Amino acid sequence: MPSLEFSLTATDPGSKARAGEMTTDHGKIQTPIFMPVGTVGSVKAVSQQQLKEEVQAQIILGNTYHLYLRPGPEVLEAAGGLHRFNGWDRPILTDSGGYQVFSLAGNRKLTEQGALFQSHIDGSKHLFTPESVMDIQRVIGADIIMAFDECPPYPSDYAYARKSMDLTHRWLDRCVTRLSETPDKYGYTQNLFPIVQGSTFADLRKASCEYISSREAAGNAIGGLSVGEPEEIMYELTALCCENLPEDKPRYLMGVGTPWNILENISLGVDMFDCVMPTRNGRNAMLFTSRGVINIDNKKWEKDFSPIDDGIDCHFSNFYSKAYLRHLVKAKEILGLTIASVHNLAFYLWLVKEARRHILAGDFNRWKNEMVPVLKTRL
Amino acid sequence: MPSLEFSLTATDPGSKARAGEMTTDHGKIQTPIFMPVGTVGSVKAVSQQQLKEEVQAQIILGNTYHLYLRPGPEVLEAAGGLHRFNGWDRPILTDSGGYQVFSLAGNRKLTEQGALFQSHIDGSKHLFTPESVMDIQRVIGADIIMAFDECPPYPSDYAYARKSMDLTHRWLDRCVTRLSETPDKYGYTQNLFPIVQGSTFADLRKASCEYISSREAAGNAIGGLSVGEPEEIMYELTALCCENLPEDKPRYLMGVGTPWNILENISLGVDMFDCVMPTRNGRNAMLFTSRGVINIDNKKWEKDFSPIDDGIDCHFSNFYSKAYLRHLVKAKEILGLTIASVHNLAFYLWLVKEARRHILAGDFNRWKNEMVPVLKTRL
Repeated sequence: MPSLEFSLTATDPGSKARAGEMTTDHGKIQTPIFMPVGTVGSVKAVSQQQLKEEVQAQIILGNTYHLYLRPGPEVLEAAGGLHRFNGWDRPILTDSGGYQVFSLAGNRKLTEQGALFQSHIDGSKHLFTPESVMDIQRVIGADIIMAFDECPPYPSDYAYARKSMDLTHRWLDRCVTRLSETPDKYGYTQNLFPIVQGSTFADLRKASCEYISSREAAGNAIGGLSVGEPEEIMYELTALCCENLPEDKPRYLMGVGTPWNILENISLGVDMFDCVMPTRNGRNAMLFTSRGVINIDNKKWEKDFSPIDDGIDCHFSNFYSKAYLRHLVKAKEILGLTIASVHNLAFYLWLVKEARRHILAGDFNRWKNEMVPVLKTRL
Repeated sequence: MPSLEFSLTATDPGSKARAGEMTTDHGKIQTPIFMPVGTVGSVKAVSQQQLKEEVQAQIILGNTYHLYLRPGPEVLEAAGGLHRFNGWDRPILTDSGGYQVFSLAGNRKLTEQGALFQSHIDGSKHLFTPESVMDIQRVIGADIIMAFDECPPYPSDYAYARKSMDLTHRWLDRCVTRLSETPDKYGYTQNLFPIVQGSTFADLRKASCEYISSREAAGNAIGGLSVGEPEEIMYELTALCCENLPEDKPRYLMGVGTPWNILENISLGVDMFDCVMPTRNGRNAMLFTSRGVINIDNKKWEKDFSPIDDGIDCHFSNFYSKAYLRHLVKAKEILGLTIASVHNLAFYLWLVKEARRHILAGDFNRWKNEMVPVLKTRL
């Protein structure tokens, strides 16, 4: 079957920012794009209806590690894949589980073969290999399947980073082989994205980009960033990776980040983002808005009956007031978690849509430089 | 201003069931009706949009006790009332706080003057009097204001029940006086409903109905039932109260109940209901459906990809499957709480709408007798 298509619509004259369009068998995605994280097959506290109508999400993520443990491949296969299981009929991307094994699971052991780990839920033992992880993502039914990788911690020494990168490359080869030997599961195309690693070392990152590019995948991801390193280092390495990855394929920067991180990385040539920040921080009373950052827990919002954010095109953000949301948060009402999550996600989607509009208009870089300090303002 | 209007549309030939229509300044309510409970100004886990579009709620409740403590009358007054604060533009009924003082607060002390209590949140001391409770409900801006009453526990002895009922009647007089001395707060009519008490004693209940009826209120409530007594006693007392309350005014049975309780009480002449059961039980994995009761936690639903309930006219209940909801509940995902709550409320609203349809068609009693065993079935 034909792989995912990507076409560049416009490039910004003042930066490396690009606007494009991806076509999957579950529909088109306009880039740059932010992908809400639906860990266990649900974007936390947000309904599928709200994701479409309020957030205007075009693609969501699922986490292979979580979905493998619960509900498990058997249930997902019986359902006919995650789209059928959770009712989300737009594109889905699944990560490979590598990152979660190293951040959540217990008693991890890494070998050439793969990663042995214990479930964080019941302590049961499991082995992820490049092959098994491809099989699981086939069963989940992701439109975009991520290669199995090792994400080295920050900081890592050069020897470790190099060894880890080489392992990630060998695992990539096994992923490619496995996918070539197994058919798409549910009648639509499932596309592999390899992941660049190499920690904070420019020569390793460059080598990894070259290796990854040689696989001529439908899209390429940059992993191992936003794991604790200073922002400036992240930007430097993202710039380097974007320069060394194919121009005609989408570039996905994994796990990033704040609204200003997203604008800066768009200016370096990134097309796709995901991050738990809008939902996780939302559940902890932190709102990102078109005028800056709000701690909605703060007493200053007690009688502020203005909308959460009337600067964005989300009904929820216009309908509910700061004072009402603060009240819900103080009273620990579940609706508070939903409103904060929906708003933050809608804001992220608004931000990348605005970025796209400015790339098409040719004034992205000027707009980005104006917006970044606004977005960072503490209100 | 003119008080709430109520017109009877039809009565069932086989029972005392009635179909009617109430008109408030925030719109019409078709009876019999179920009112979702929005304790602190939010129906737990359900958005105002879902309440309208999925649940099809016509009126919701607020709890005076909770709203008084959080966000407090000062914030609600600054907002312009609860409708403006939470964005719900249909009718709102508030209870008087009496029941919560005796079920939630600490160190309660009852006097002729009112009820002294400690907040369950921070232990602060407060006094509710009939006058203060009328003032608070004015500020909340309820379309229907409940009289301040004492709800005696089950069982109560005759002497206590009689003393408590007399106090409730004296408090009612003070409520009526206070409301007559204070204007509607926000330009729309606020209507007082008195509450019949008298525990499980027929003569007290009858006396209370007579006293309450003599006040010629816009509607009348039956309190102190569904507090632990056997169902048959509840039905007997409801029947007795309905016979002794005005026919041309709506009758509200407070805090009831299961789906079969609701149908039985409709057949006795009740027009309005509220209960936390659909939301609270929903949050604990218990679903009420048109085919019976489901414990969605049960393994038997693991691979049941059929809709939660395709027998009712709620998009959510048709869209999400039993297997997906079970997965969300097992994984403790917030969306599981929302789906279960929305479904259960939509089911209750569907049930009273069906009841109304059958009253209009003249076959309510036959339908009710068929439905009750179905509703009680454990699936």
